[in-house]
Amino acid sequence: MTLKVSDIGEKELIKYIISHSSTITPDDTAITSFQNTNLISTCDMLIQSRHFPDNMSYFDMGFKAVTVNVSDLAAMGAEPLGFLLAIALPKDLKISHFKQIIDGVTQACNYYGIPLIGGDTNEASEIIITGTAMGLTDRPLMKDTYNKGDLIVVTGPIGHAALGFELDVLDNVYVKKALKPEARIREGLILRDYATSATDITDGLASELYTIKKDGFGFMIHEEMLGITDEYKSISEGRGLDYLDLALHVGEDFELLFTISRENLEKLPIDCMVIGEVTDSDVVELTLENGFVERIRNEGYEHYVSE
Amino acid sequence: MTLKVSDIGEKELIKYIISHSSTITPDDTAITSFQNTNLISTCDMLIQSRHFPDNMSYFDMGFKAVTVNVSDLAAMGAEPLGFLLAIALPKDLKISHFKQIIDGVTQACNYYGIPLIGGDTNEASEIIITGTAMGLTDRPLMKDTYNKGDLIVVTGPIGHAALGFELDVLDNVYVKKALKPEARIREGLILRDYATSATDITDGLASELYTIKKDGFGFMIHEEMLGITDEYKSISEGRGLDYLDLALHVGEDFELLFTISRENLEKLPIDCMVIGEVTDSDVVELTLENGFVERIRNEGYEHYVSE
Repeated sequence: MTLKVSDIGEKELIKYIISHSSTITPDDTAITSFQNTNLISTCDMLIQSRHFPDNMSYFDMGFKAVTVNVSDLAAMGAEPLGFLLAIALPKDLKISHFKQIIDGVTQACNYYGIPLIGGDTNEASEIIITGTAMGLTDRPLMKDTYNKGDLIVVTGPIGHAALGFELDVLDNVYVKKALKPEARIREGLILRDYATSATDITDGLASELYTIKKDGFGFMIHEEMLGITDEYKSISEGRGLDYLDLALHVGEDFELLFTISRENLEKLPIDCMVIGEVTDSDVVELTLENGFVERIRNEGYEHYVSE
Repeated sequence: MTLKVSDIGEKELIKYIISHSSTITPDDTAITSFQNTNLISTCDMLIQSRHFPDNMSYFDMGFKAVTVNVSDLAAMGAEPLGFLLAIALPKDLKISHFKQIIDGVTQACNYYGIPLIGGDTNEASEIIITGTAMGLTDRPLMKDTYNKGDLIVVTGPIGHAALGFELDVLDNVYVKKALKPEARIREGLILRDYATSATDITDGLASELYTIKKDGFGFMIHEEMLGITDEYKSISEGRGLDYLDLALHVGEDFELLFTISRENLEKLPIDCMVIGEVTDSDVVELTLENGFVERIRNEGYEHYVSE
């Protein structure tokens, strides 16, 4: 049997790339140190059929292409330096739609204070946007520099985008989060001075927790702290969806997930929500509302895997 | 009539982007000044059906994705700092082919001395690779800082890749240039100390000359200096192709096109070929082998334009 890309999944592909380069690190975001500072750089490719829901406007596609990249800068506590836009468009795309995409990109760049400095244009059978964001920071916030006893905190509700992707209405809080998520760049800059570690939630809370987990450390998350409302549960159930699955295993919220000492949390000048604590259990667990404790599955959004 | 992307062409799309951002410059490569140096950054998206000939190996696809970006650093005289790889693959791509692409990328990074530092993986209906190259230089080489009387020089033969794309043999110098072009990174670093301006030849000599042209200046190119051999002419004619068209209007050679004073040319420690001089004619001209002078058409490779 000849192995195909879909047989091994994205994580194994990434492992191969990392194992064949001595210079790449297993992180969303690269850190290059020089002249007493660190260049933070990251790129994400968004493909229309995969990343843009049918009801997403062209403006929001452009905005999101900036957000997903700036979110990686935010997680590192980096000051935005510049954004590159590589975009491929179908030949028969209307010029007015092209302009809406670009307006989304430029307005997002203004919103996040990151200058659009260059790029590339191309032709393809669907819309493809690769953004590259660059930033600077003296002290990058790392993913796994937490200590036992630190609190686990998020900058906003978890699972809203996941539910929004399932809805076909246009104007509720969940759909808005799915179609126009925002990167927490301001919060990331503040967290540099308070948090012990940080990452952004793109592939789901569960997936991010397993990504940042290091040997000998564990996480205890509390369902009742996740801010899951009765409304959230009822809309999920009405669609035949498991509300905990949505909250834990989908992602695309672009909230920051960070750890912080109890002492520093009291001083932290941003809105946030404590959802658990760092333990020495070596496992990733959830205390359910009924008091039972269960392991959280290591499942999140992954490309290529056969459905 | 509703205007489509194919109705206006790539150059008009780029004009729209530039006119809607105060921070972008009309250049392939972005310059961000900070801390007494300049971050040079550039990204290029390569799409299988557009940029990779059918007879190109998977290894060479990966290699080329690095070359096209490093070539932009070379044209600026920048020291390579880091490379990001965003790659989308079809689900049914063989793992062995995926590995060959990655080997091409990592070997190119080693060859050019640019560390692979990060990236993104994705799924698409064909292979799409967006590379981002970052570099540093105290004194970037600009495209249009030439003077009247400067010589126009290239680092190697022009039009070889163009002819190579038309051939179905595997082992001649033209096909090699088409399938595995190399960026002139070493030459770019040397040119910083000698040249008055530089760019790289991606879209064809004619197109690059029109790109760097400024008001009141012109270029006189001499056909007999272009190094077009009898063999080149005869293979072209055998395929029903106009050899001057190939040499002037196709590109993909990734040689550097630079300007230099006569005095500095004598001291320049790299192999190169003088092809003309900067004039004040305000036009881009070619002296043919028969002594006649004609205007060079402003035509090169452009995406989107209906064929």
